[in-house]
Amino acid sequence: MEVVGVVVEYNPFHNGHQFHLSAARADTGADLVIAVMSGNFLQRGEPALCDKWTRARMALLGGADLVFELPYQFAVQQAETFADGAVSILSAAGCRSLCFGSEAGDTSAFIRTLDFLEEKDTAYQHNIKAHLSTGVSYPKAASLSFKELQPGENLVDLSLPNNILGLQYIRAIRSQTSRMKPVTITRKNAGYHDEHFSSESIASATSIRKAIQEGQSVEQVNKYFPPTTSRLLQNYLNTYGQFHTWDQYWPLLKYRLIQCSAEELREIYEMEEGLEHRVKKAAITAVSFSQFMESIKTKRYTWTRLQRACVHILTNAKKTEMEEFKRAQYLRLLGMTQKGRRYLQSHKKNLGLPLVSKASSCRKGELDLDIKASRIYSLGISGRAQEELLKKEFAQSPVFEDSIG
Amino acid sequence: MEVVGVVVEYNPFHNGHQFHLSAARADTGADLVIAVMSGNFLQRGEPALCDKWTRARMALLGGADLVFELPYQFAVQQAETFADGAVSILSAAGCRSLCFGSEAGDTSAFIRTLDFLEEKDTAYQHNIKAHLSTGVSYPKAASLSFKELQPGENLVDLSLPNNILGLQYIRAIRSQTSRMKPVTITRKNAGYHDEHFSSESIASATSIRKAIQEGQSVEQVNKYFPPTTSRLLQNYLNTYGQFHTWDQYWPLLKYRLIQCSAEELREIYEMEEGLEHRVKKAAITAVSFSQFMESIKTKRYTWTRLQRACVHILTNAKKTEMEEFKRAQYLRLLGMTQKGRRYLQSHKKNLGLPLVSKASSCRKGELDLDIKASRIYSLGISGRAQEELLKKEFAQSPVFEDSIG
Repeated sequence: MEVVGVVVEYNPFHNGHQFHLSAARADTGADLVIAVMSGNFLQRGEPALCDKWTRARMALLGGADLVFELPYQFAVQQAETFADGAVSILSAAGCRSLCFGSEAGDTSAFIRTLDFLEEKDTAYQHNIKAHLSTGVSYPKAASLSFKELQPGENLVDLSLPNNILGLQYIRAIRSQTSRMKPVTITRKNAGYHDEHFSSESIASATSIRKAIQEGQSVEQVNKYFPPTTSRLLQNYLNTYGQFHTWDQYWPLLKYRLIQCSAEELREIYEMEEGLEHRVKKAAITAVSFSQFMESIKTKRYTWTRLQRACVHILTNAKKTEMEEFKRAQYLRLLGMTQKGRRYLQSHKKNLGLPLVSKASSCRKGELDLDIKASRIYSLGISGRAQEELLKKEFAQSPVFEDSIG
Repeated sequence: MEVVGVVVEYNPFHNGHQFHLSAARADTGADLVIAVMSGNFLQRGEPALCDKWTRARMALLGGADLVFELPYQFAVQQAETFADGAVSILSAAGCRSLCFGSEAGDTSAFIRTLDFLEEKDTAYQHNIKAHLSTGVSYPKAASLSFKELQPGENLVDLSLPNNILGLQYIRAIRSQTSRMKPVTITRKNAGYHDEHFSSESIASATSIRKAIQEGQSVEQVNKYFPPTTSRLLQNYLNTYGQFHTWDQYWPLLKYRLIQCSAEELREIYEMEEGLEHRVKKAAITAVSFSQFMESIKTKRYTWTRLQRACVHILTNAKKTEMEEFKRAQYLRLLGMTQKGRRYLQSHKKNLGLPLVSKASSCRKGELDLDIKASRIYSLGISGRAQEELLKKEFAQSPVFEDSIG
């Protein structure tokens, strides 16, 4: 049986994702698609528009057969750790290939780039260090250092976000000696960060979120996603009254920053080099999350890095917890189709990690960070609906939908 | 110069307080009244209806000449520590007497009771221990043990809240070898906890707060306080849009309890004997502060004790911080009249503790807990007014009003 894995966030699931899933299936001749998906907080340090169960449903209706959660510890992370977590889950779930979208769109170019970097590693690391000492951010330092190595034209451009992620997937596959075959497909039309709609029916998730956050209704943007996404988003709005944005968590973050000591803050993951004093001071005067972010940003830290730090402060994610494991320790099932269920039944004994179907029946402590993050995510919703969402994390069984893909 | 001290919370200042201030002045023949007042969080573990600057103003207009803040470390405490803090401040400020209201109303009866308890201390402590082991609360155990000592009729009844406090003032005066003379006057008409209005113009602060919290306007209850209180309360409402109640802090307390670990909670003052697990669990399902309190209460802990613990969780007040000092370390001036100012000018060199007039000009770290508590108190207010209140704590100079007393 041919099984392909994809790494996703689906915030929300749109036509570009639909295209990617179909292409992944077609390009690899796969019978089954497994998605590993970030939970309620995402790689860029943001709360997802709607919860992971709803997004898992979108994935199933869009063509995935199984959806596993990328644990918080790997999801709210820079590319390298994100890739380590995702690759370890897809490998353990039995994927034969990992298919990712990239700007480069050429798998062998990625392999060559990785070989090139491994060969030049000493010089590369040395250059990065030198650039960092001038005060620039890590991604900037890495990108400049890469250029200084004078890569040939047959290597990928490492200033583009999906190329960076792609390279990390391949590095993780190699370092974990996974048998998954990497496959890349060119991302269609919309760049990851594009904020404007660039084609008739394909738009980046960023532009869709922006439109919704600026007050456009689900109906106004629904040409960019399949009808299933549209229906699920509308349901979410009807049930919980709102989508999740940082603004809802700002009062909690502000409180947290006032309440805790600088020493306590220093235990939080990504709080380094005096950043704890900077954020504590800024929290007192800032009146909104965006104003707060503006007042703490520097050349040294990217917006994304700072947003991730804010999520960790919000969830109280400590360095000790975040650095505990290099690979995922469990496969938490968020959803499945009929075909996905059959696959799990027949492969139960061959899975590389323990399968977790329900948080309440899980070994004590194992999912602590994921459960806590989801509970805090629920606090973004006000009124009675908050309780509904709060309960969900612990009691919810994997969602079941039959794929339309 | 005859100077009398009073220990107050003024939440809010009402006719009974006015009576007490006048009586304190008359009974002691004092030229000057110094009040030591709890800050924004009170002895019973509640946020004050309005902030300490407004309440200091009420005190000055009601007849006090100087108002000092009882630091958080002593204010949000059981009677013994509360009294230790208050007595150390009034002594250091130069009071010749301390005048307190009590149910007993007979100073010599308090002295006899204290002598009696000191003499019977071994048996008393032994009985308390025995009662505590049956699971009752400390106040209950102390009250039962006192009765078992068969106190004569000329001692005070230690089941009444103001008698308990009064006894602690006298104990603190003795243990600190303060030269202050204790004087008590009978509390007029309304018992501390009376929730119903019991006379034409005197009502307990509890009943006034209850009426306001249940939606009565300031106007509807203004016969119970002087016009100055009425005006200040109405101003507060106009400026900040609301009075402070636990309900406003419930979302923050709930978040805090979900976010922190049981180990972290155990460092909080008054978190003992597994209470940390109990409160963490209850926070997840409770939908309001009162529901939360109902679900955590036991025979062992009084409501007040649990409310105080909740304030400490909210403000992140650690055991180490709360237990650091047995007496106050500074005199933080909240307000003064012309006469109070002259007194301070002429007695500057004789004060027993350093005078702090403005938080921003204070030694680093000294006021940390008070400043933090006030900032968190500000978060109870929503919108732009929150920022106003937040700034106040650090920038405010002592308020100045001329006494009408």
